[in-house]
Amino acid sequence: MDLRFLQSLIAPAATKIAMVIMDGLGGLPLEPGGKTELETARTPHLDALAAQSALGLTVPVGPGITPGSGPGHLGIFGYDPVQYEIGRGALEALGIGFELGPSDVAARGNFCSVDAAGLLVDRRGGRIPTDVNQELAKLLRTVRIDGAEFFVETVKEHRFAFVMRGSGLGDALTDTDPHKTDAPPLPVRALKPDSEKAARLVNQFIEQACHLLADKHPANMILLRGFARFPRVPTYQELFGLRAAAVAVNGMYRGVARLVGMTVLNVDGATLADQFTTLEKNWNDFDFFYLHVKQTDTAGEDGDFARKVRVIEEVDALMPRLMALQPDVVIVSGDHSSPALLKSHSWHPVPTLLYSRHVRADGIAEFGERACARGSLGVLPAKDVMPIALANAQRVAKFGA
Amino acid sequence: MDLRFLQSLIAPAATKIAMVIMDGLGGLPLEPGGKTELETARTPHLDALAAQSALGLTVPVGPGITPGSGPGHLGIFGYDPVQYEIGRGALEALGIGFELGPSDVAARGNFCSVDAAGLLVDRRGGRIPTDVNQELAKLLRTVRIDGAEFFVETVKEHRFAFVMRGSGLGDALTDTDPHKTDAPPLPVRALKPDSEKAARLVNQFIEQACHLLADKHPANMILLRGFARFPRVPTYQELFGLRAAAVAVNGMYRGVARLVGMTVLNVDGATLADQFTTLEKNWNDFDFFYLHVKQTDTAGEDGDFARKVRVIEEVDALMPRLMALQPDVVIVSGDHSSPALLKSHSWHPVPTLLYSRHVRADGIAEFGERACARGSLGVLPAKDVMPIALANAQRVAKFGA
Repeated sequence: MDLRFLQSLIAPAATKIAMVIMDGLGGLPLEPGGKTELETARTPHLDALAAQSALGLTVPVGPGITPGSGPGHLGIFGYDPVQYEIGRGALEALGIGFELGPSDVAARGNFCSVDAAGLLVDRRGGRIPTDVNQELAKLLRTVRIDGAEFFVETVKEHRFAFVMRGSGLGDALTDTDPHKTDAPPLPVRALKPDSEKAARLVNQFIEQACHLLADKHPANMILLRGFARFPRVPTYQELFGLRAAAVAVNGMYRGVARLVGMTVLNVDGATLADQFTTLEKNWNDFDFFYLHVKQTDTAGEDGDFARKVRVIEEVDALMPRLMALQPDVVIVSGDHSSPALLKSHSWHPVPTLLYSRHVRADGIAEFGERACARGSLGVLPAKDVMPIALANAQRVAKFGA
Repeated sequence: MDLRFLQSLIAPAATKIAMVIMDGLGGLPLEPGGKTELETARTPHLDALAAQSALGLTVPVGPGITPGSGPGHLGIFGYDPVQYEIGRGALEALGIGFELGPSDVAARGNFCSVDAAGLLVDRRGGRIPTDVNQELAKLLRTVRIDGAEFFVETVKEHRFAFVMRGSGLGDALTDTDPHKTDAPPLPVRALKPDSEKAARLVNQFIEQACHLLADKHPANMILLRGFARFPRVPTYQELFGLRAAAVAVNGMYRGVARLVGMTVLNVDGATLADQFTTLEKNWNDFDFFYLHVKQTDTAGEDGDFARKVRVIEEVDALMPRLMALQPDVVIVSGDHSSPALLKSHSWHPVPTLLYSRHVRADGIAEFGERACARGSLGVLPAKDVMPIALANAQRVAKFGA
């Protein structure tokens, strides 16, 4: 369903929607026939909520597609992640918490090694330690070129985020990485006329970087790839008339929330309980809340089944604080699956619970993958969850008479 | 799936399909954990049929979208209701049973009050009684303008349906309602060149109406809005090769059935049993039958849970008369949900049963929302039901070799 069609039916209401996203929530049993992380976790509050909810399994991007965090979030936020693709450069900048502006052009950067003839010897610059990267990034920040401001932010080892800020900068730019050694780094080329200024400026930056790094072997040159601006995404305010707030700690999630027009709240403290406190303090000021739990994904990616179970139990224990605020609609889901068994993101559909007074409850008193597979939401695209949540929040008018 | 693709595979057969639509069939429990209207109803015949059927939940328009009767019906009839949108003026005319022609332009009309300077005082003309409306409608029918024929049909209170019949009349016309008082009604403007003739004729009509109503305060002027022709919809005959008949009593449903090319049968009598009698009498003459039950929706909109239950039980008791005709395929569904709890149409998916000799039966001997949530049709767009019904009726050839 087209978002503009939904937008045409949006009606104002005084209701509140809360979306709790446990990152990488979906899992797998360690042994065939066993239980997943979510099925193993003792979750009395989520189970009780499930009994009053409609359950389903969400597909973040498409069948068989393993989403990154950016597309996974765009999906559950209600957008088609393929239509609104966030380029790699923009994701890299978001990932380290860089506040990417709407006309900034970002890229993924590598320090690399070149020989005396300027030919690539090591595309990863000897995987220098992160602290060396930080020193080199400081050096590159001294570059000054008329027409744009440049940002160089360490990611880790040889990787950094590159951002160029200025006016009239297009992002239709080719990579400088030739993807082989014994070849020189390529100059950036503009693929469209609107990106010619940007190409010229980036090439000037690279030239200066080359001089500054000349004696810094093995990190004596840079490669840039995945040039991208933030995609223009219609915001929650614009599409749904929602004043939306994000309670997320990590850069990537704060960035994607900002992309869709959410106000990103500052969390005082580092625990999940602190995030719920932030939710409580701001409850009166917004219509929609996105609360992001990172630790489930980290445990999944670490292959730590037991830790992922514990994080889910910790979230469960905090759910009464959310329910005490009497939200009209509650969504509990994930942006993708991250089974500890696979130690990575995966393509598996994500257990999803939708609670409201007006939901047709399935009466299944369990929140887990197989429970959700029996739910009346069925297996649905993640982007279909928001329209149903909005309907339950009485925010969608009737179509036709 | 595209209807034209399906059309390319349609093959003739001597089979018969019956579609029983209980309007607003889907419901909600009155209390959390309780039963819906359909789950409460004692429906031994539908339950027995369910056991031999595939069950599912249909989504009429899209996730979270509450359909009006027009879009809800187009969905279960097999069309995308967003693609084939029926304009508000056309719906108003259909709603009172006006036989809208393919080139007629319809609008919603209001009698309204204007002051001596022609400024709006009351957009609803003091909500005059319906019998006064009928007198004024008679008066407006005396308007004669070269180039078109005009119809004015009372809806109720201050509302009427306006229809203009002629050749070369476009419907890209602006509303005359300024949506505020102390402003004059607006002239109609053409938004496309093909609608200029229509705009001129409507403005002439309004001018004459203004003179005729001058001394009829508080209904001394008219407002027209939502100008629309019938959308051009490929018919059942054209798409599916079906001779289709509608057994529906109310104007709206007869109109939508006519829109898709069904022959609208006259029902002798006013009871549900009379509708089944009409079905029996015409059984030999058509391949497809749509039987519409209005009373479920009316009860739902009235918030009368018990009456909705009784209507469903009445339909159940009549089902043996349909089954005695030995239809090859039977669909029992609704055009949308109308839970008594909400006293209105709603976005909830609709319980749907598809019976045939060749269906893969789920073996679930119950027709209800939660039973259908477990069915093998899953949660599916309503428009996908007709292709499956046609396949079960042996009317769709193999695609590819």
